[in-house]
Amino acid sequence: MTDIDLAFASIEEVARLYRKRKVSPVEITKLMLARIERLNPKLNAYITVTAELALAQAKKAESELFGPRGRKGHRDRGPLHGIPISLKDNIYTKGVRTTAGSKILKDFIPQHDAPVWAKLREAGAILLGKTNLHEFAYGVTTNNPHYGPTRNPWNLGRIPGGSSGGSAAAIAAGICYGGIGTDTGGSIRIPAALCGIVGLKPGFGRVSAEGVVPLSRTLDFVGPLARTVADAALMLDPVFVRLKKEVSLLASRKNSPQTRKLRLGLPKEFFFDVISEDVYAPFREATRSLQRRGATLKELSIPGLAETEEAGNFIAWAEATHHHQQSGWFPAHSADYGQDVRTRLEMGTKVSATDYLHALESRDKFIKQVHLAIAEAEVDALVVPTTPIAAPLISEEFTPIGNASHPTRALLLSLNRPANLAAIPAISVPCGFTSAGLPVGLQLIGPVTCEPILLRIAQMVEETISVARRPNL
Amino acid sequence: MTDIDLAFASIEEVARLYRKRKVSPVEITKLMLARIERLNPKLNAYITVTAELALAQAKKAESELFGPRGRKGHRDRGPLHGIPISLKDNIYTKGVRTTAGSKILKDFIPQHDAPVWAKLREAGAILLGKTNLHEFAYGVTTNNPHYGPTRNPWNLGRIPGGSSGGSAAAIAAGICYGGIGTDTGGSIRIPAALCGIVGLKPGFGRVSAEGVVPLSRTLDFVGPLARTVADAALMLDPVFVRLKKEVSLLASRKNSPQTRKLRLGLPKEFFFDVISEDVYAPFREATRSLQRRGATLKELSIPGLAETEEAGNFIAWAEATHHHQQSGWFPAHSADYGQDVRTRLEMGTKVSATDYLHALESRDKFIKQVHLAIAEAEVDALVVPTTPIAAPLISEEFTPIGNASHPTRALLLSLNRPANLAAIPAISVPCGFTSAGLPVGLQLIGPVTCEPILLRIAQMVEETISVARRPNL
Repeated sequence: MTDIDLAFASIEEVARLYRKRKVSPVEITKLMLARIERLNPKLNAYITVTAELALAQAKKAESELFGPRGRKGHRDRGPLHGIPISLKDNIYTKGVRTTAGSKILKDFIPQHDAPVWAKLREAGAILLGKTNLHEFAYGVTTNNPHYGPTRNPWNLGRIPGGSSGGSAAAIAAGICYGGIGTDTGGSIRIPAALCGIVGLKPGFGRVSAEGVVPLSRTLDFVGPLARTVADAALMLDPVFVRLKKEVSLLASRKNSPQTRKLRLGLPKEFFFDVISEDVYAPFREATRSLQRRGATLKELSIPGLAETEEAGNFIAWAEATHHHQQSGWFPAHSADYGQDVRTRLEMGTKVSATDYLHALESRDKFIKQVHLAIAEAEVDALVVPTTPIAAPLISEEFTPIGNASHPTRALLLSLNRPANLAAIPAISVPCGFTSAGLPVGLQLIGPVTCEPILLRIAQMVEETISVARRPNL
Repeated sequence: MTDIDLAFASIEEVARLYRKRKVSPVEITKLMLARIERLNPKLNAYITVTAELALAQAKKAESELFGPRGRKGHRDRGPLHGIPISLKDNIYTKGVRTTAGSKILKDFIPQHDAPVWAKLREAGAILLGKTNLHEFAYGVTTNNPHYGPTRNPWNLGRIPGGSSGGSAAAIAAGICYGGIGTDTGGSIRIPAALCGIVGLKPGFGRVSAEGVVPLSRTLDFVGPLARTVADAALMLDPVFVRLKKEVSLLASRKNSPQTRKLRLGLPKEFFFDVISEDVYAPFREATRSLQRRGATLKELSIPGLAETEEAGNFIAWAEATHHHQQSGWFPAHSADYGQDVRTRLEMGTKVSATDYLHALESRDKFIKQVHLAIAEAEVDALVVPTTPIAAPLISEEFTPIGNASHPTRALLLSLNRPANLAAIPAISVPCGFTSAGLPVGLQLIGPVTCEPILLRIAQMVEETISVARRPNL
């Protein structure tokens, strides 16, 4: 295998090569570090590269995995053992600074690991570094005013999306094999879609958000980003809270559902109201491919979708400002924030308690409505685009669709908020490219606890559409 | 037994008399209805008297209880069978109007019973009527602008306290044997103290608040009022959510703890900062009596008490206004509210979401602090006064204590809010009289799930102090 093939190999493939001793964790880690050295200056995907830690972890993994069987010290921790990954820089890493993309936390070194990282480390994952993000995860561009913008590997003049933009860019560029991000209004799925990778936002209670710098306690979710659905499942597996007797996240040929039995719900309203033809064309082609393979598409209505924007905004604004006030950062250190985040924090002070409570009630109602709609239509999941546009330019504030111009940030968020508000699982999986060669994401949204099903459906989409392209870097 | 003795008999005694067939449920119900007819015009304790329903229920209870044993139809539903009680008029009663003391709901007839009433009815309790309250339970005087003020049976020029003022007045005046009230900031305990009866506010999750017109979802609790601790336990028993293997609420000589083993915590701060000598003297005498019987009093500090007022206010104001907005009552029907409640609803619109969230966080912190303080001091419960003053005059806005004048409403609330904020059980039990002959209440507050223990301690207080006086009506 060439270095470039190795760099873009799946976690599954690398794990297999390790077991065959075709390549070693130290070699793979060195390959990643060399690529980071070469490509990170272009992409600005990492804020901190933990080269020493990564090499030490790689040596340990190598001695555990390659040590003589039966001898003391030999140990196989499973598919993530020796796999170099990245963590979004709002996830606590003991002894490794965790900036949350902010100036305020530029020198913050946590004294403990977030449980999500502790579990991945225990599973043998190697930390390459901490990835760039929108300041405090409070935005969707990853145009970070303190650490510089992250650039989209498919087009360096464009944003990777956000807030987990660094994670998505690093994975898409082959400078790590997977990452953990956070998603409060699309922050995993948006960059996954814009960078042509897979991103999963789990449902309520599935992945601990402890040790993650909070944005909005009600809407925050922690989840994996990876190049393939199987890799996303592998990244999710060690941190996932499993129900009793629940099927495995890792699909085998045996328990994988057949495309012809698949029933997908296509919402009539909201998701297709404002969408660029560039995104809609590959999305429609993807759903047609699924239909050709026997999947059923059923149109359905979900009441309350239109109110998700306001409810989501009120909850996120109030809770974010509350956290920054409680932490003593805002308004005391107002000048240390980038302009956009400061403005949002100021908006949070203006939300009234009754608006906030009304938003929480709308949320409760919406949770019921979306579950009812899915149950009544008897579909496995909803299928919608992840974003109505592909990756915008770094400086793009407004994006034209048809004859109208729309605020870019709102466009990117719009189709993602419903799953955060409803606290239900959603996954973005690549489904093609725009005419300009920018990746397009297809989003699957399902009822609570449907993560294993979403992963299987996403895998079908992946198999059906086969998007085997790499960014040219 | 004379009629007056029967009217003031305990639920336990009446139940015993029923089993001996010394008196019948119909006789007792008629006695109560006759007394209501005579005394309610003075007291204004009932908004609605359900005479027909009560008599029908009494006949049914009589035929069940007095029917020949072994014959079909004979049934003994336990100690509440055939006992006439009252419900605060914010508790849904199917087919019986439920005003919540408001003009807005003056013609509201619920289509279902609140679970708390369904369970009491199933236990054989007879409904005499719906008692007066502070409008929407949003205040502590029961000076109701739409249905008139309820008067204190111990002094008709004084308030019974509130918001469950009608319940407490009715029980103290012997025009029902027990009642169910609600307590958001002391609304069971304050009138219990001011009317010389027992009132228990349960802890989190113990009694369903379903089918009760909400005031503040976070702080609302439903609980019993009665003339004796044993009667309060009997009223609570059918509606109480019991833990596995939990001791019974109904103390027997066997499982009653001994006074000499009792350890009570006396908070150093807050509860005694502003208190009238008139209340403090009987309270101190009561604790001394307990000490003489062997109880240990231990001083302790509870951090965070001073912040409970602001946190409680922000939560109650915001949640109350939210509910009234959601119901379409406020501001649409502003003119239909009494001035004081309207003003409070307006205050609710001014609470910011971040203040509300900060209050919720203070609450979480306080819950931990109060439990830690009780655990560290190794006490069974805290012992404090229920209110720092005895029943104020109906028109009293400010009450002098020492050389200073204090807002009366705030005084009545002050010592009660902590248990609502901490969502822990608290009981008010009579502990003597002021020099002017007004009842004084002693409050026991304990950690979560301590209701059975509180009832036992309250029973010891009751036995030790023996407050055998009746209001002169």
